[in-house]
Amino acid sequence: MSEGTSAALAAYTETLRSQIDSALADCCNFAPGCPPQLREAICYSLLAPGKRLRPMLVLLSAAACGGDIQAAMPAACAVEMVHTYSLIHDDLPAMDDDDLRRGRPTCHKVFGEAMAILAGDGLLAMAFEVLARKVRPPALAAACCAALAEAAGPCQLVGGQADDILAERNPQPQTACDLALLESIHRRKTGAMIRVSLRLGATIAGAGDWQLQALERYGQCVGLAFQITDDLLDVRSTAAELGKAAGKDAARGKLTYPSLLGQQQSAERAAALVAEACAALECFGPRAEPLSALARYVVSRNR
Amino acid sequence: MSEGTSAALAAYTETLRSQIDSALADCCNFAPGCPPQLREAICYSLLAPGKRLRPMLVLLSAAACGGDIQAAMPAACAVEMVHTYSLIHDDLPAMDDDDLRRGRPTCHKVFGEAMAILAGDGLLAMAFEVLARKVRPPALAAACCAALAEAAGPCQLVGGQADDILAERNPQPQTACDLALLESIHRRKTGAMIRVSLRLGATIAGAGDWQLQALERYGQCVGLAFQITDDLLDVRSTAAELGKAAGKDAARGKLTYPSLLGQQQSAERAAALVAEACAALECFGPRAEPLSALARYVVSRNR
Repeated sequence: MSEGTSAALAAYTETLRSQIDSALADCCNFAPGCPPQLREAICYSLLAPGKRLRPMLVLLSAAACGGDIQAAMPAACAVEMVHTYSLIHDDLPAMDDDDLRRGRPTCHKVFGEAMAILAGDGLLAMAFEVLARKVRPPALAAACCAALAEAAGPCQLVGGQADDILAERNPQPQTACDLALLESIHRRKTGAMIRVSLRLGATIAGAGDWQLQALERYGQCVGLAFQITDDLLDVRSTAAELGKAAGKDAARGKLTYPSLLGQQQSAERAAALVAEACAALECFGPRAEPLSALARYVVSRNR
Repeated sequence: MSEGTSAALAAYTETLRSQIDSALADCCNFAPGCPPQLREAICYSLLAPGKRLRPMLVLLSAAACGGDIQAAMPAACAVEMVHTYSLIHDDLPAMDDDDLRRGRPTCHKVFGEAMAILAGDGLLAMAFEVLARKVRPPALAAACCAALAEAAGPCQLVGGQADDILAERNPQPQTACDLALLESIHRRKTGAMIRVSLRLGATIAGAGDWQLQALERYGQCVGLAFQITDDLLDVRSTAAELGKAAGKDAARGKLTYPSLLGQQQSAERAAALVAEACAALECFGPRAEPLSALARYVVSRNR
């Protein structure tokens, strides 16, 4: 890719990111009945500067399938709401007990545990409201609600987080076969929301089966590459660089890719997964170039 | 109402209650990916013996509107899932810190806080999955998802719970104008889920505007009558009778109907609301008789 193309792509995704931020801010215009403290806690977490990776995946998969990006914006907001809720709850003292997130004190540190639990609960409900009300036609909205609910449910996102916590609290001597458990956790905890983001964008764009399958493959690879990179960043970075605690995994004896494969092999694995992700997109032609660039970004990012 | 009619009604609602219990149990057949502890925590709370008031309202409002009760069963399950999630999270140490619920130790007492938070999160997602997948046609499913998400969101259920906690933590000298705050909290915390239960049943039955409006009025009255009765039971009962802690409101200096109006006037208010609720149903004729009976039960129950 030439430098000109690369710069144009960067400008394009930056424009989308700012559209996502505006759309998320619009979702925070609450009707009467939302207590000010709750609204603040929700906005604090939802509107904090973030990579917006999942909403970008929604919009870029819609574009790759030839659909209208603006029609996919409600789904982009919905996946960011679910992601934000999961971060708020994962950070709670009873869960991962984290003080720092996206470079700021975590929601419960600022608003207290009760308000943080409720802010997460509220965001999860808001995600389904924006999908059900704004995705059109309504039959498509129902399909999107079903897919998002499954990805956020006990067999995917919530199940992955539960197994992650259980594995951390009952640590076993690490063996090679832990790689299967580790990948199973991440396929649910991180991967499910990445895959459903792609699926929602594609569904709203009216994608056919081959497009959904190609994006599913891309999503599987990107999801794992994302998590391997997260694990590597935890080893290699400082909290200031990450915007969240660093070196935490090793301190907790947590099952990670670097602890199982070593840093070098982990980095190679991530690179191979990105190549596989980009290969899966070939059938889309140039319309999927922003998705390929996003896959490369996922492993080259520094936070 | 004759004793024969009353017995027939009781048998009818008992049959529905057992159908609801079966349908809820069916919802707990999880796909692979749900960790056993999480599944247990979800089933423990969802399948605990309960009044099933909200799912009954879904089914009986569908029947009052001449609809098929079985077609409304997914919505009945969805409202019970949202209700159960809200109980699990409300009982957490960071919220109301309760040890007893439905006559058993609360979810976090048995499974720990992390698993209880996740069980609640999972149930909320499950509610939208069952609605989106099983209500047909899909356009109706989307309307149901939108209504349920709004009722469960930051301006209704979650907002009411937030204001309830904030009012308890910042107690003010109680005055007559507190009645407006108290009713505003309960309209959101308890009332919203009662009203949306009626709305879902009616929507699935293809109800017209006059039916929706009559059920909304019924729901407003029953919701408040339910809460007044809850407050009275907290004063008058033992924990063994209630299946949850008793005398707790006074101990916490909580804003309640008996504390504002006295027991006698509270009971009169509840009775007047039930009469108003039943009057709102007159236009439905005999098909709404089970809903009238349910309104009378709401204030005569002992737990």
